[in-house]
Amino acid sequence: MTYCVGMVLDRGIVLMSDTRTNSGVDNISVFRKMFHWAVPGERIISVMTAGNLATTQSVISRLEERSKTPEERSNSLLELPTMFQVAVETGKLLRETVQDTQSENGEQGKGRFTASMIVAGQIKGMEPRLFMIYPEGNFIEASFDTPFFQIGETKYGRPILIRGYDRNMSFEDAVKLLMVSFDSTLKANLSVGLPLDMMVIERDKYEPAHEQRIEATDEYFLSVSSGWSDALRTAFHSLPNFSFGQPGNG
Amino acid sequence: MTYCVGMVLDRGIVLMSDTRTNSGVDNISVFRKMFHWAVPGERIISVMTAGNLATTQSVISRLEERSKTPEERSNSLLELPTMFQVAVETGKLLRETVQDTQSENGEQGKGRFTASMIVAGQIKGMEPRLFMIYPEGNFIEASFDTPFFQIGETKYGRPILIRGYDRNMSFEDAVKLLMVSFDSTLKANLSVGLPLDMMVIERDKYEPAHEQRIEATDEYFLSVSSGWSDALRTAFHSLPNFSFGQPGNG
Repeated sequence: MTYCVGMVLDRGIVLMSDTRTNSGVDNISVFRKMFHWAVPGERIISVMTAGNLATTQSVISRLEERSKTPEERSNSLLELPTMFQVAVETGKLLRETVQDTQSENGEQGKGRFTASMIVAGQIKGMEPRLFMIYPEGNFIEASFDTPFFQIGETKYGRPILIRGYDRNMSFEDAVKLLMVSFDSTLKANLSVGLPLDMMVIERDKYEPAHEQRIEATDEYFLSVSSGWSDALRTAFHSLPNFSFGQPGNG
Repeated sequence: MTYCVGMVLDRGIVLMSDTRTNSGVDNISVFRKMFHWAVPGERIISVMTAGNLATTQSVISRLEERSKTPEERSNSLLELPTMFQVAVETGKLLRETVQDTQSENGEQGKGRFTASMIVAGQIKGMEPRLFMIYPEGNFIEASFDTPFFQIGETKYGRPILIRGYDRNMSFEDAVKLLMVSFDSTLKANLSVGLPLDMMVIERDKYEPAHEQRIEATDEYFLSVSSGWSDALRTAFHSLPNFSFGQPGNG
């Protein structure tokens, strides 16, 4: 499994992903699921991936044209004129990879090898944009009403995102919020695991404003993880107490 | 969809279920998913259901032998000597109903019409017990390490249960905790809906200690629902603040 979140704020985009991949519970590895490409001063593009690892690695390789020799490669991510076209191209490669692998495996391939992606970035002269790309190659874009996307194991960490998100929040608060969301997910699903990758795309900066790997020993993450239990307990006790048979609760 | 939780405390068992059923998003109804049978002074047994409604209604009807005329019926739930046997019998009826409907529908029936159940109760002279029953008819029992079961849409509401549960808690606090868990689920999945049914099985009482339907207009539920957002925000701000590039954070 996987957990990745991309979140649009007024001041830019914050991305976080875990790094655990598993084939069954007895075959666990660490793989990077967050990638980025930058032309300093002109564009920054990041892709996060969830789903079949062979599929997602193939898409990333094809985006970079790694099947060609280095001098023959042209990375379309660095050349496409708009983020919309980046999403179209990524979606096309994803759909082709999923469909090819499925059809090569015939009846057994049906419904397998799927993956989804989050594409985020900004190209000079345009707004920062955030897309979620489906295995079918189509995609949706984040909006004022739906300002963040999750892929992978999305449910455990969603309630706190819904309650805690604020478009005006600082990057620091956004990272803190994401850490709480990831901690809830890590505690509930073994197949999502540390370390985490985090990146901040600051509006009009065109290079990673912050980029960090959060290891299992990270002191700040550990303080959030342990502090959140106490904080939740305090929050819980601050709610009005229930009593049986009170008026209107007959 | 559905959301039901059964939770074992030192002083008894607390049960909560939603009441929304849907066949697509354009066909929504209210159906009771929590049932109970009591012999005052001797036993109390409750069943909560998730999954295919025709399947679960059929199982409940068969438990009560509603296919027979009233004078011929013998409700096995009121006669079986132990809660374990109640779980066995419920599981058997569930498996038969699922398998029969699947086989009657041939190829198209595969993997469909499934349901799962939570069985809770106490019979005099024995401990209160809580079981989760799978569509295959087998089941597991709650333990000291895993003292609550969820069925249906389990993920959104799970983190707060994990953090908030305490075996010694009062029934009132348990209901409050369940309301927070249900509120998080209701906010994230439209196919889980109010009203909620709540029941308390108090140890050695053999009849519902409390039983209540919580309507959408319930003042206490509304105060939890709105208060939890503020409480979470306060909890979030009580955590240490993140800062980029602090020592140990690269």
